[in-house]
Amino acid sequence: MHPQDIVYVNGTFLPRVEARVSVEDRGFVFGDGVYEVLRAISGRLFAAQFHNDRLRRSLTGIRIPLPEGETPERFVEIGKQLLKDNDLLQGEATLYIQVTRGAATRIHNFPPADVPPSIYISVARFNPYRELAVSGAPVISHPDLRWGRCDLKTINLLPNVLASQAAKERGAFEAMLIRDGVITEGAKTNFFGVVHGALRTHPCDNHILPGITRSVLRDLAREVNIELEETPTSAAEIPELTELFLTGTTTDVMPVVTLDDKPVGKGKPGELTKKLQRVLAESLASGGD
Amino acid sequence: MHPQDIVYVNGTFLPRVEARVSVEDRGFVFGDGVYEVLRAISGRLFAAQFHNDRLRRSLTGIRIPLPEGETPERFVEIGKQLLKDNDLLQGEATLYIQVTRGAATRIHNFPPADVPPSIYISVARFNPYRELAVSGAPVISHPDLRWGRCDLKTINLLPNVLASQAAKERGAFEAMLIRDGVITEGAKTNFFGVVHGALRTHPCDNHILPGITRSVLRDLAREVNIELEETPTSAAEIPELTELFLTGTTTDVMPVVTLDDKPVGKGKPGELTKKLQRVLAESLASGGD
Repeated sequence: MHPQDIVYVNGTFLPRVEARVSVEDRGFVFGDGVYEVLRAISGRLFAAQFHNDRLRRSLTGIRIPLPEGETPERFVEIGKQLLKDNDLLQGEATLYIQVTRGAATRIHNFPPADVPPSIYISVARFNPYRELAVSGAPVISHPDLRWGRCDLKTINLLPNVLASQAAKERGAFEAMLIRDGVITEGAKTNFFGVVHGALRTHPCDNHILPGITRSVLRDLAREVNIELEETPTSAAEIPELTELFLTGTTTDVMPVVTLDDKPVGKGKPGELTKKLQRVLAESLASGGD
Repeated sequence: MHPQDIVYVNGTFLPRVEARVSVEDRGFVFGDGVYEVLRAISGRLFAAQFHNDRLRRSLTGIRIPLPEGETPERFVEIGKQLLKDNDLLQGEATLYIQVTRGAATRIHNFPPADVPPSIYISVARFNPYRELAVSGAPVISHPDLRWGRCDLKTINLLPNVLASQAAKERGAFEAMLIRDGVITEGAKTNFFGVVHGALRTHPCDNHILPGITRSVLRDLAREVNIELEETPTSAAEIPELTELFLTGTTTDVMPVVTLDDKPVGKGKPGELTKKLQRVLAESLASGGD
């Protein structure tokens, strides 16, 4: 058995191929759960406290209480054990944590209070997009069909799946979502753009996920005296975008050089983008928790 | 073991408590699947062809191709076997059919074409809401937070779960969803109302699920010379609703007598509602295919 094949499910460490949940798990029949993906660099988890806080916020948002003794911090500790067990303490890896409302007879309402949540934790080798980060990536625009609480990191991800697949089929790295004429974010990334010299990202509201990298980058931008406006960018302003990039836990700062096959700005990674790429890379190299 | 405990998962009939799927099933990590719930009366499935057609439409809508030999009709045959195995050929039961995009390493894009969909089929005893159907039910209004393709019957059901729970906590039978000032439907039912003597339901578009009972009732209404307008009802028109009812496979025609604790019409089931309740009951008693 390959060493990278141990996962954690509901109290047990076991081979991934044997890791199963009930068909009555509310994750499986309702998508009734939340998750986080953390970045591990040489066994060190980046911005774990931010992820823990967001997981807590998502759990509260969909009202899954954790049983006594179960905490995001404990899940991260289990993740660290998995990194070790799976020989991922060197190089890059991701840690996936998912909590669902547990397994019970299918009924839309919440199950009885004594049904424990299901907890699934796994790790995987991760290869950053180094070449694409230099050349810049193509993206497409796509209608934002998601629900009204995109600020919660839930496993109701079907619209994201369909948008990602649409991007892949058009040879694009990501789908940039447009809701009511406004660029919200990518299917799995946050959006940043430069319009008339000003760096912008969508404000935090119920239409975007408050990305950890988005938040880290906001602080880093301030440190290097780059002003960031948290203001919506309309689809009508797309021709005025001189730079565009996407951020995410596994995306870092990804320059976007074409949008729907048309060049963005000069069709190559912009100066502000490259500067923020550097400051984030430095933070990742030095950082962790 | 209780006889009502055999389910079908991916080719195998087995006890429900042993029925499991991979933690990598896309149903579990993305809610990436679709489903149907059918009504069985004395072992006879009601409107199976409608359900099969809708399942096919949902599968096409989210682009899950069925492997050679797998069809909705075959799933229904498996369901009939389950009704028999679980001693549910007498009385009322429900048949649940779910298809997900299968189990594969987690990535938003579709998995490789050779990953088969996961198929889960189960049956359960069902008790119609006989008393509530006579007295009428209380409902609440609730923001419609769902995504932009409510016409597909997917397992991305978290907004429905949260709305149903909100209803339950307020002692209500159902949550009636309001999107952009318009009554769309219930969290698991379709909406019908009477305004100025005219029977209305929301038109079929991307904001409602085309309910089987909704469709059956539309045909039955025509047979008994009741005109049905497929036109939106705004939340502002709520005070003008003299009758209100909800329909669904397990709901039949459910009169609504209070909305947000205020009486609807005279606060008791209306005449049109009761008439349609009768014609549907007759159809259920005689019908099925």
